[in-house]
Amino acid sequence: MAKVALTGIKPSGTPHIGNYLGVIQPALELVNEFDAYYFIADEHALTTVHDAKQMRELSYEVAATWLALGLDPDRTVVYRQSDIPEVFELTWILSCVTPKGLMNRAHAYKDAVAANEAAGRTSDDGVSMGLFNYPILMASDIIVVDADVVPVGSDQRQHVEYARDIAETFNRIFGETLRVPEARIDDNVATIVGVDGRKMSKSYGNEIPIFMEPRAQRKLVMRIVTDSRAPEEPKDPSTDNLFRIYEHFGSPSDVAAVRTRYESGGIGYGEVKDMLANALEGRFAEPRARYDDLMAHRERIDEILADGAARAQKVARATLDRVRRAVGL
Amino acid sequence: MAKVALTGIKPSGTPHIGNYLGVIQPALELVNEFDAYYFIADEHALTTVHDAKQMRELSYEVAATWLALGLDPDRTVVYRQSDIPEVFELTWILSCVTPKGLMNRAHAYKDAVAANEAAGRTSDDGVSMGLFNYPILMASDIIVVDADVVPVGSDQRQHVEYARDIAETFNRIFGETLRVPEARIDDNVATIVGVDGRKMSKSYGNEIPIFMEPRAQRKLVMRIVTDSRAPEEPKDPSTDNLFRIYEHFGSPSDVAAVRTRYESGGIGYGEVKDMLANALEGRFAEPRARYDDLMAHRERIDEILADGAARAQKVARATLDRVRRAVGL
Repeated sequence: MAKVALTGIKPSGTPHIGNYLGVIQPALELVNEFDAYYFIADEHALTTVHDAKQMRELSYEVAATWLALGLDPDRTVVYRQSDIPEVFELTWILSCVTPKGLMNRAHAYKDAVAANEAAGRTSDDGVSMGLFNYPILMASDIIVVDADVVPVGSDQRQHVEYARDIAETFNRIFGETLRVPEARIDDNVATIVGVDGRKMSKSYGNEIPIFMEPRAQRKLVMRIVTDSRAPEEPKDPSTDNLFRIYEHFGSPSDVAAVRTRYESGGIGYGEVKDMLANALEGRFAEPRARYDDLMAHRERIDEILADGAARAQKVARATLDRVRRAVGL
Repeated sequence: MAKVALTGIKPSGTPHIGNYLGVIQPALELVNEFDAYYFIADEHALTTVHDAKQMRELSYEVAATWLALGLDPDRTVVYRQSDIPEVFELTWILSCVTPKGLMNRAHAYKDAVAANEAAGRTSDDGVSMGLFNYPILMASDIIVVDADVVPVGSDQRQHVEYARDIAETFNRIFGETLRVPEARIDDNVATIVGVDGRKMSKSYGNEIPIFMEPRAQRKLVMRIVTDSRAPEEPKDPSTDNLFRIYEHFGSPSDVAAVRTRYESGGIGYGEVKDMLANALEGRFAEPRARYDDLMAHRERIDEILADGAARAQKVARATLDRVRRAVGL
């Protein structure tokens, strides 16, 4: 049997082209090598999304996005975290073998503390127990489906290490029960800049949503920040925000031609922006049609996710049953 | 409809006569005033019990103890926490609206930190996330069955206050969804000393188990620490360990007679120990027969708890469904 690879998808924002390159595209390739499990981490998103309508909308948006971009529910298991109640009981049980010191050192928590201290606030200001606990929830997400491999960027490496630590501690105390997952670090994933030149991220508000209405998307592309050099001046394409987005979406021959024209001079930013807008429209035309169709027939999304949940829950139930026997419940 | 009162029973040790006077007897009286819910907090006990066999044994022992002492499953709802998976999903959701600061100030956690610091260890040494999180689990236990009232001693008051805080915060963010529980503080509960004169507690190892084998129990009574004064010396009964246990178990007329003989002199400790052992044996003879019978037919305990779980789960499912709608899951 192929190994199981797990990918979590947090519905905390409308998916943008940075997510597409950095997360979605690499994750969709896992299917060639693994039994791929994908889950919408909706209960995880509760740490930041506190509006029911937004939560429902974002969950459908991310599910439709992944399905439209090629996630094949016949070849993979795709489900909502909130459809697997076993995850939450396992989270509690794992918390009983997780040292608090481990959570004190979690990156997301430490970042929150550092930001508070820099701003002269008390360390835990605005920190919820959801934020503090979420490495345990992530460990449970991984462990409950017996995942072998969790493909992550190096900034997410700690989460898989924590899941390993927690599984190993559990096994040491209660006997061999849990599969110990491994991280697969992929540092070659593409990251792109947003319209303001910083890393594309919804937290900077500089993102280009994948399935934005095409005219609005074109307008957003026109707003990409460039410098004021004239078209005829030679430019280094590797330092230009616009080119650094375009190179991921233009055809190889177009990208090569544009690169040459940057280096020799004779290309204006307006022209490249136009090419980028066209490239995005072309690249996402078919997926957009599928996306719009799914969003107009949400019952199909529900069906797909319910089917995936039934498959994931079988594994989750078996894991939790093993765990309950091991601890004496 | 009567208000709902909830009592949690942590299976972390064999029930002793201190539990009987301080917890079990008062809790069993709730049935006259409330819709009484009692649950075996087995998943809660995971914070300290890390042995499957011990966990199973203790869970049966406490269930059999309460049933033998008069808990009537026809008039009340009695269930295992681990049979209500809704509790754990609700725990996660509540953690997302619970400030970490609240947990930093929880008594049990602060006590652990103080003990570590006094011993020169790092603050969180040996502290698990189960210990740190358990006020949220308790809030969830209370909230999930729509409890109106939680009868507690004043040392447990904080738990109910936390449950109130968390329910109110949730309602403020997501709209009126959760019933806000109230503590009913009963400070008149009897506490008794153990065989060494300190408060009876399994953490001191000075307890007298309720359903200990009678001859062993008698031997334990003989070990109650007293002073070396001769029988004929007058003594203040209120400062004598032995009398302070006996007064709760002897008949009123016997207790009055013994008190008089303490004050006037002329009673030896051996005689009082003998009376106490007899009183315990008499008081618990019938419950002991029921207890032994239940422990010999554990399938009956399982049936009673499964029936209670089905009743509690109906309420729990309805609460969780309300919560999920409110947050957009």
